[in-house]
This record gives sequence, structure tokens and C-alpha cells, in this order.
Amino acid sequence: MTSAKGDERERILQAAFRLFAALGYDATEIVQIAEAAGLSTKAVSSQFGAKRDLYLAVMERAHVLHSAVVEARVKDVQTAPIAEKVTAIHRLIDAYIDFSADNPEVPALWMHRWLSDARDVSNLEAEYVRPLAEFAIENIIPATEAPDADVHYTINTLVWCVHGFVLSGVFDAAGRRRGPADPRAMRRFRAHMHQMIHRTLGLPGSPPPAR
Amino acid sequence: MTSAKGDERERILQAAFRLFAALGYDATEIVQIAEAAGLSTKAVSSQFGAKRDLYLAVMERAHVLHSAVVEARVKDVQTAPIAEKVTAIHRLIDAYIDFSADNPEVPALWMHRWLSDARDVSNLEAEYVRPLAEFAIENIIPATEAPDADVHYTINTLVWCVHGFVLSGVFDAAGRRRGPADPRAMRRFRAHMHQMIHRTLGLPGSPPPAR
Repeated sequence: MTSAKGDERERILQAAFRLFAALGYDATEIVQIAEAAGLSTKAVSSQFGAKRDLYLAVMERAHVLHSAVVEARVKDVQTAPIAEKVTAIHRLIDAYIDFSADNPEVPALWMHRWLSDARDVSNLEAEYVRPLAEFAIENIIPATEAPDADVHYTINTLVWCVHGFVLSGVFDAAGRRRGPADPRAMRRFRAHMHQMIHRTLGLPGSPPPAR
Repeated sequence: MTSAKGDERERILQAAFRLFAALGYDATEIVQIAEAAGLSTKAVSSQFGAKRDLYLAVMERAHVLHSAVVEARVKDVQTAPIAEKVTAIHRLIDAYIDFSADNPEVPALWMHRWLSDARDVSNLEAEYVRPLAEFAIENIIPATEAPDADVHYTINTLVWCVHGFVLSGVFDAAGRRRGPADPRAMRRFRAHMHQMIHRTLGLPGSPPPAR
């Protein structure tokens, strides 16, 4: 691939990433992606094939971005001696919140799928979501002191909440929507997530102090 | 309004309710709603005016459906003597889960808004969401025994989780998506929500036994 072709490919991928996140797969047309990338539809299809293939490339990029930030924290939880597992779990929570707030397109891409977007591409959750959930269950259970806590559903809770907060925010007393761009809302959300997961799982000690 | 006109109006409203929930406001055209209702686009606009007006009628219906089920449980929390407030809070959680599972179009309509659907209709959260959150904060705080719990963010957590579970479900070990239609997943989700909120808010006693 020449460097010009590589640059075209990257522009298409970035435009598709933004548009699929904003509008969903079903509502996005190749012509819109081509326009946003400043290229012809022919250039888009010669680089990526059909819309479905471009979507798969976008979801792969979302996964790579996510892994680059979260994977190191996941390894920490795996390898931490039992006395440090709780700290490692809280660092993983922070990394996941930070990643999602910094890359709101990623929760948006997945949330479109919750709303039945791209139903014809059906294997993505099994490929990307399930392995992470399985890892987390195995590695978090040894740290809990509440044998009746549902670790699997607690992990889903973190995902639902982070997606919800990043995309919907919360309403303050004046009726204004406050999301991750608001430092006070972000601090409250973060402290609440740590406290909620700590208490629900019955982790020993206290959650980390608010940062 | 004649009975035939009333019947037409109801058919349009039902079709719009389903289509806005499935596709979102921005991606739904009046012609699709007319087709789904078996009527002309002219009949739709003579009954409801512009698409925006029909959307407002759909969101009003979503609110009425929600209130009919949830409002009585909300009153119970308000009026319960302190010793019974915890039971009333758990009944409210159940009512909200049941309502959302029985009417998945309602969480879908709101989740589309999280994804910036219908941005030109901007006052709905302030009108419908904030009063309920304010009520809940005022009435739940007296029952908590964890002064550092964030009641406002805990209520948002319940909403994010119920919307997430109803629309996305969770993955079982075989990689299958399990949502409210799966009795075992529904039981686990319900038990987890009760436990999580009970522990996060530091409510006295135990959460209710799984049903």
C-alpha cells in the first residue's frame, strides 16, 4: 500500500468511526462516509468493500483502542497478589471510565447495537464482550468477601452505567445535563462507581479516596 | 372526534410508538408510520401535525404508561413510615423493572435520546425525568444508613442498568444473549439490583428474598 492509499484508508476509517457512532450502522450510508472523508464512494469501496466490511473494521478499531488502555489494568488484576487485588480492581474501574469518557464513540457504537443496530452482524458481542466478562469474573471473585454477590451482573452494571453516564449524563437541580465534560459530575460518578462496586461485591477495606 | 377518527388516531400513535422506539426519531419518516398504520401521510398529518408533534405525543404516552405503573409505588415510598420505607423502596425497584421489561419501547425511546436522537426536542428530560429523580432523592435519603451514599447517582444507576438489561441483556457462558424474556436471567438481574441498591445505600436489614 502506498502512503497516499494508507492516508485515504485512515481518513475513511475515521469518518466511518464518527458516523457509525453518531447515527448507527443502519442509518449511515457509504456516500455520507465518502463525503465526510472527502473521497468518492468508489474510493471507499475499493479500500473496504461493502458497508458491512467497513463496519467490521470500525468495531475492530474500537476494540483495539479499548484494549490498549484497559488491557494493562486487566493484567494487573490477574497478577496482583490477593492483598493488592482490591486496589487493582479499582484501577481497572478508573481505566474503563477514563477510556469511555475520552472515546465516547466506543460506548455509542455498542449502545447502537443494544438498540438492534446492525442486526446482520451478530457475532461481535461473543467475540469482543464475552472474553472480557469471563476474565473479569474469574479474577474478581477471589477478592470478594460477599459470597452471594453476582460478579457477572456487577460487571455488566459497570458497563451499563459507564455507557449511560458518558452518553446521557445526569440532571442537576437546574435541569441541566451534566456528563463527563463537567468535572464535578465526573468526580461524583467516579466516586459513586467505586463505592457501589466495592459495597456490592463486599470488597475488604474502603474504596479509594475521591480524586 | 368521531369513533372512526379516534381509532385512526390510536393506530397512528401505536405505529409511531413502535417505529420511534425501533429506529429513533431522526431515522423514522412519516410515510413509514402511515404505512404501518395502514393510512395515508395526509391522514397522519391531519391528526397530529408535523413529525415533531407526533413524537411529543409518543413521549407523553410513554410517560403516562410509566406513571400508571410506577406512581403508586412512588406514593408508597413517600407515605410509608420509616420502618417500612425499605420494603417500599424495594417494591418500587420491582415495579420499575417490571414496567421496563413489559414495555421495552419506553427504555428504547429514551436510549435513542442518549444517542442524540431528536436533539431539536430538548426539554423532555427536564419535564419527565427530573421530577421523578428529585422525588426519589428526597424520599429515599431518610431510609439510608450510609451518609456518604450518593442517592441521586444511585437512582441514575438503576435507570442505566434497567435500560441496559432490557435492551442489551447479558451473555451466558455459551455466548447467548439473555434478556428479560429469559426467566433465569430476569431473576438474577432482579436479585442483583435489589442487592446492589440495598448495599450501596446502606439500607438497614436485608434485601427481599429472590422471587
